[in-house]
Amino acid sequence: MKSLIYLDHAATSWPKPPEVMQAMQHAMVEAAANPGRGSHYMAVQASRVLFDTRKILSRLFQIRNPNDLIFTYNTTEALNLAIKGLLREGDSVVATMIEHNSVRRPLEYLKRVLGIQVEYIPVNKCGELDMIRMKAAISRRPRLVVCSHSSNLLGSILPITEIGELARRFNAVFLVDAAQSAGCLDIDVSAMNIDLLAFPGHKGLLGPQGTGGLYISPAIELEPLLHGGTGSQSEEKEQPLVRPDRYEAGTPNTIGIAGLKAGVEQVLARTPKRIYQHEWGLVQQMMDGIQGIPGLQLLGPEAGQPRTGITSFISAKVDASELAFRLDREYGIAVRAGMHCTPLAHEAAETLRTGAVRASVGVDTTAVEVDAFIEAVKEICGRA
Amino acid sequence: MKSLIYLDHAATSWPKPPEVMQAMQHAMVEAAANPGRGSHYMAVQASRVLFDTRKILSRLFQIRNPNDLIFTYNTTEALNLAIKGLLREGDSVVATMIEHNSVRRPLEYLKRVLGIQVEYIPVNKCGELDMIRMKAAISRRPRLVVCSHSSNLLGSILPITEIGELARRFNAVFLVDAAQSAGCLDIDVSAMNIDLLAFPGHKGLLGPQGTGGLYISPAIELEPLLHGGTGSQSEEKEQPLVRPDRYEAGTPNTIGIAGLKAGVEQVLARTPKRIYQHEWGLVQQMMDGIQGIPGLQLLGPEAGQPRTGITSFISAKVDASELAFRLDREYGIAVRAGMHCTPLAHEAAETLRTGAVRASVGVDTTAVEVDAFIEAVKEICGRA
Repeated sequence: MKSLIYLDHAATSWPKPPEVMQAMQHAMVEAAANPGRGSHYMAVQASRVLFDTRKILSRLFQIRNPNDLIFTYNTTEALNLAIKGLLREGDSVVATMIEHNSVRRPLEYLKRVLGIQVEYIPVNKCGELDMIRMKAAISRRPRLVVCSHSSNLLGSILPITEIGELARRFNAVFLVDAAQSAGCLDIDVSAMNIDLLAFPGHKGLLGPQGTGGLYISPAIELEPLLHGGTGSQSEEKEQPLVRPDRYEAGTPNTIGIAGLKAGVEQVLARTPKRIYQHEWGLVQQMMDGIQGIPGLQLLGPEAGQPRTGITSFISAKVDASELAFRLDREYGIAVRAGMHCTPLAHEAAETLRTGAVRASVGVDTTAVEVDAFIEAVKEICGRA
Repeated sequence: MKSLIYLDHAATSWPKPPEVMQAMQHAMVEAAANPGRGSHYMAVQASRVLFDTRKILSRLFQIRNPNDLIFTYNTTEALNLAIKGLLREGDSVVATMIEHNSVRRPLEYLKRVLGIQVEYIPVNKCGELDMIRMKAAISRRPRLVVCSHSSNLLGSILPITEIGELARRFNAVFLVDAAQSAGCLDIDVSAMNIDLLAFPGHKGLLGPQGTGGLYISPAIELEPLLHGGTGSQSEEKEQPLVRPDRYEAGTPNTIGIAGLKAGVEQVLARTPKRIYQHEWGLVQQMMDGIQGIPGLQLLGPEAGQPRTGITSFISAKVDASELAFRLDREYGIAVRAGMHCTPLAHEAAETLRTGAVRASVGVDTTAVEVDAFIEAVKEICGRA
């Protein structure tokens, strides 16, 4: 394949650490049976892979009991399980304008079928939440407060500790979407009063696609999203109550989960704090490099402010999708253009009509690659 | 790891053809981005992996439009999408007693929350369906007829062509659970009047765990199980109507799906017919070898009758789980004991109290391995 500067880590991190593929190969040979559904050697190995991965994720997120951590196909399934499993007719929800469609669409669906009420708290152009309105909304005691930890368009970071305190004070369930923060921001479910934490395996945790998860506080019971076989209490008509079985019907992605464990080990070795610092530095370099380009407008927090590894921008001269296309074809640089599944954040950023280009860095992105990206954007916009 | 005779293919086939891991490695390097969500090189490659896999599965199942084939985490998710996406308050359903908990539990859940009515048509001790009662039930025009193609406990094969004809005649939607048949029995969705076909990637199709799918006839619209981002029509509150996007919210398991494609290629090269003949022959050998053991009782169809690669049995002398445990520890032979997530089939077989041992063969199982299994069962039961 052609040489590539990959700046689409906010969608899927790449390349994975070599340990991830090695762990998957090993699992395919040693543990590729169905966990919890047989007593034979490979089934036991498969159960071990799952439990060890639950344990290491629990360490990362400060989860007390690893069995409160449920594996899912992706963050979208985790969010659907959380939202549809919790909400009932007449419930009200407080969300924010930076939410991804994986939060907004389940909520809009439940609006339509159950008549729930949803309030989306505004963010400003930089993606900062209006905490006065947030506080007022939470004080009306919604059933659920749902909040993305970091915007997948703007990179802004929401004050989830503060929001978690409010949620606890007013007795609301607190769901955090950690799609852009797991692996690069500290997350402590008990210190942050997080009741439900949805996260991807294939982004900041450096695992493969087909992995993700949901932490479910022991104080909360959800209706499962999937009903089916669990290998336990098979004679019962209903899902067993025991966790994680209750929420994990069907054969899990043991091979992918083995890869996820290897990814999380890398994250823990590097530490989320250092990963954040590395990515933040690259974003500053990127912003600094492209901000002077005529007609170019940066989105998200100001330079020097906290943000995750995302730089989004528009150009008055070159259409977002053309810019992304030319970066790919002419320079071998992979970025993303469009809506990024988050229309309300675009509304806030005033880019709903244009979409935006998003360049997102990862754990192994280098300053040299960022420089090449800056030069390429300059050339494309300069020629326009 | 210790040498292993693997007879748990009905749970997950193993080992996978080497091409499967190679395809996954290749995809991890070449196509590990998010399909349909970017125009860059790897995103395009990822889209291609998905589309090529849809195409080859469509060839296997005689599906006209590959976009009617939806990827899921596993068969359980496919069945939940089919059942919960279709049924509404007051609907009635005809199912059978061989259904897996991945069918029974979603149905029982909808009984409880929507008040649907469900009739489970009996099978006899061998797992053969009572077609007189089936016909009578379908003639009462249920909304849905759901039927496992082959019992995961008894190996019996249900006459889905005949059932499909009845479903069409009485205007019922026909859902087939191909968990045990995909890859070893011919499936033609149009000739068999199948409206919904749920299948696993990790059993007879020789792909990795974390893959599966649902064919949805173009005549049928389901409510999606997952609402979220699709990379298309992102500004809309609702899921887009276009397939497959409508039913595939969130990041798919591209790496696993690349492995599934390689697995299906192997199945097509060997042909389901030859795979069936191979497995059927091994099951006959197995039945013949163990049927004379004192106290041992075989379940499922008589010798010489059609069945998939499953041999289940109980021993009056050795408890099922002990037998499985000793086969593993003393002989390195992996089988499964217990309920196999199908309590009604156990009721039919009169093994609800005891559970059963299930030995299931795969594409590369050899007669020598089956002989070793027979000798081991003889020794264990002889010593008891």
